[in-house]
Amino acid sequence: MPVIAVDAMGGDNAPQAIVEGVNQALAEFKDIEIQLYGDEAKIKNYLIANERVSIVHTDEKINSDDEPVKAIRKKKKASMVLGAQAVKEKAADAVISAGNTGALLAAGLFVVGRIKGVERPGLMSTMPSFTGQPFDMLDLGANAENTANHLHQYAILGSFYAKNVRGIATPRVGLLNNGTEKTKGDSLRKEAFELLSKEASINFIGNVEAREIMSGAADVVVADGFTGNAVLKAIEGTGLGTMKTLKSAIMNGGLKAKLGAFLLKDRLKGMKETMDYSSAGGAVLFGLKAPVVKCHGSSDAKAVYYTIKQVRKMLDTKVVEQLVDAFDPKEEVN
Amino acid sequence: MPVIAVDAMGGDNAPQAIVEGVNQALAEFKDIEIQLYGDEAKIKNYLIANERVSIVHTDEKINSDDEPVKAIRKKKKASMVLGAQAVKEKAADAVISAGNTGALLAAGLFVVGRIKGVERPGLMSTMPSFTGQPFDMLDLGANAENTANHLHQYAILGSFYAKNVRGIATPRVGLLNNGTEKTKGDSLRKEAFELLSKEASINFIGNVEAREIMSGAADVVVADGFTGNAVLKAIEGTGLGTMKTLKSAIMNGGLKAKLGAFLLKDRLKGMKETMDYSSAGGAVLFGLKAPVVKCHGSSDAKAVYYTIKQVRKMLDTKVVEQLVDAFDPKEEVN
Repeated sequence: MPVIAVDAMGGDNAPQAIVEGVNQALAEFKDIEIQLYGDEAKIKNYLIANERVSIVHTDEKINSDDEPVKAIRKKKKASMVLGAQAVKEKAADAVISAGNTGALLAAGLFVVGRIKGVERPGLMSTMPSFTGQPFDMLDLGANAENTANHLHQYAILGSFYAKNVRGIATPRVGLLNNGTEKTKGDSLRKEAFELLSKEASINFIGNVEAREIMSGAADVVVADGFTGNAVLKAIEGTGLGTMKTLKSAIMNGGLKAKLGAFLLKDRLKGMKETMDYSSAGGAVLFGLKAPVVKCHGSSDAKAVYYTIKQVRKMLDTKVVEQLVDAFDPKEEVN
Repeated sequence: MPVIAVDAMGGDNAPQAIVEGVNQALAEFKDIEIQLYGDEAKIKNYLIANERVSIVHTDEKINSDDEPVKAIRKKKKASMVLGAQAVKEKAADAVISAGNTGALLAAGLFVVGRIKGVERPGLMSTMPSFTGQPFDMLDLGANAENTANHLHQYAILGSFYAKNVRGIATPRVGLLNNGTEKTKGDSLRKEAFELLSKEASINFIGNVEAREIMSGAADVVVADGFTGNAVLKAIEGTGLGTMKTLKSAIMNGGLKAKLGAFLLKDRLKGMKETMDYSSAGGAVLFGLKAPVVKCHGSSDAKAVYYTIKQVRKMLDTKVVEQLVDAFDPKEEVN
């Protein structure tokens, strides 16, 4: 039975939201085991006992303002580090945390380790779109600088994920660029375009622009970590800002506006749900020897549950083992 | 009296919207002259005669799908090229077009010419924010690749614009980066951070993230052309998509939703106006010897009017002459 290590102490609502998410997942999925890493007494406050869950007690944890690499090296007993260590030692098959993103990236790279042949694992999320059909995008910022070769690998990684975890038969892979014509972009994009065009294992559809990615332009969007991070944050900032502005327009609009909003409530809620992508799970540091997944820092129990569901699917489809094989056919699958 | 050359044939609504915008500007501003370049008979259909407006007839025009540099070289009599040529020959002080963006950039660079010392002029727009206080951002895509030196120059250019045209005494200049800490970013950002920190003529406030730029993080946001373009398009795509989704949620929501929307109409309109930045004018190709300004392709008469207002302000404050002086004190102001 697959074993998922969960950092119980990471995120704004830990350990309560984390443990409650674990409770939901254990009730729903009878074919997984969970290891919870963190303060045993606190975890027990919320945990519903189950023969498929265990607690590995530790007093140490990584804080959100800890310097990532230093924290991983100094805090060897931190809940997040112990979870990653369990994966390395094959006591667990995957690790999830809602804590310090940089530290989880560092734990993924230095403790869990890269798939042989993958140069720079990328951070990938399944993002919402206005068409209701989400898309995967990477790298969202695991790296500040990437080469064309990295982008080539992201195209393969993203395509494997969309196919296995999201069930899209031949995912359309697009290269994020400043225009759709094939001659567009800087030297990095031009070189990456050539590599993707020649890659027979993916369905490369050419360049896509940031204006169109949320309108179904591609199933997988390939970006360097710097641009991917900026685009992700621009989308988040615009989306959140629009909703906040709408809310304050209603609040300061007197009785008429409040009544209007009341009548529109169901529709606005439906719209919010379309755009809410927590059901797709967390952000995967993809290209590692096992699933290492980051839940949003503000995750509630539902988001934790969905991330466990996502990791279960990744383990079930053996997407990582397939990648190991694709990147280096000689290496043995663990 | 300042003379503004206007390409009457560029954009989706040309020449009607262009000429009507000119009519409004001439009625409002008694201290400017306009030269309209394009099809005389068509222009006359809409133009309100005025002693401060003249028509320079030409049959040729650049289409939206023309290859920019080639179009500028081959179509020497195109309305846009003649307008730029008039600026070069000092028959006009600035040029405006709603036509092919790439061609206008090429005309700006090759016909009007760079300010001595400015290596790579950048495309700059005044963008809306949720706080109601807009910000200037550049480069939005005039260049696919930039050096730290270019970013340094954009900081100075943007600061001059915000001070002179928008009247902000000491504009806060931020560097678009993947985190706010000073050590963040790729090598380009790290090098640019150093240069901006040492630049005494600007008020550098450090790194800003794409999530915060629409919430008043800085008055001037400095980006390389590739990232700036991607962020601009991500903001546009998210904003337009959200509005479209809201609209269709209302339309498909039955009578209750429609009544709700009716009651909220004034508030939604007010919100749309806050986010509408056409009143700030067009996108300036900044760093040239004269104002070269691009109106959006879908500009209506009001947007054209606002762009003329913006150019008038640029000429009135002599922001370009000040830049000539700042970048090369020895060069004479024309």
